[in-house]
Amino acid sequence: MKAPVDLAAVLAAIDEPWSPRTVAVLNDYDLRVVHTRGEFTRHSHPETDEVFLVLSGSLTIRMDDGDVTLGPGQLYVVPRGTPHQPCSPDGAQVLLVEPSATVNTGDNPGALTAERRVVEP
Amino acid sequence: MKAPVDLAAVLAAIDEPWSPRTVAVLNDYDLRVVHTRGEFTRHSHPETDEVFLVLSGSLTIRMDDGDVTLGPGQLYVVPRGTPHQPCSPDGAQVLLVEPSATVNTGDNPGALTAERRVVEP
Repeated sequence: MKAPVDLAAVLAAIDEPWSPRTVAVLNDYDLRVVHTRGEFTRHSHPETDEVFLVLSGSLTIRMDDGDVTLGPGQLYVVPRGTPHQPCSPDGAQVLLVEPSATVNTGDNPGALTAERRVVEP
Repeated sequence: MKAPVDLAAVLAAIDEPWSPRTVAVLNDYDLRVVHTRGEFTRHSHPETDEVFLVLSGSLTIRMDDGDVTLGPGQLYVVPRGTPHQPCSPDGAQVLLVEPSATVNTGDNPGALTAERRVVEP
């Protein structure tokens, strides 16, 4: 019997917010889980769209032409090149889907820029 | 305020199993939701990996070198070219991630082959 990836188990082992872990690779795309809490860096990804799927909690994505707030089981695609600021005052657990080369802070690197970290199954 | 995609709401409007609906597009990839129930066609996708993430229920993916059974919050990537047969005796709700050109029955078309159907947000 092969082992599935258990998202809750991976998330339980992460002890800091905004530190994504790649849990699966699909061709040249990553599926990443992350704890969100507080305000992230406003940034954009000029080269790619980005999927946010909330697993638990609540995440607001601030954008110039309107915000979107996601609860469990809700997703949103931020289009490429769109400045966005993820905010999560009460915290959330989020699944991201994006190309493996995507850097979390996009065009605005800084203290919250994270190395790509792959969790071995 | 922009509207998120609510996976449960989309799934509630689907009245047949094995009939995926594209709920979001990420570059040239689709995110699709599907009700699984009973046995699907054994097939492979020679050109792409395929992600299965179970939202509710239980899904077993039969493969030649071992099966994997997924419960809620568990995912598995079927590698490209790997024959697999999704089976779900008691039913499940599943999120798929795969290139938009991917046909559900892959290299083994038949009665369960589904057209690509995009749900407008």
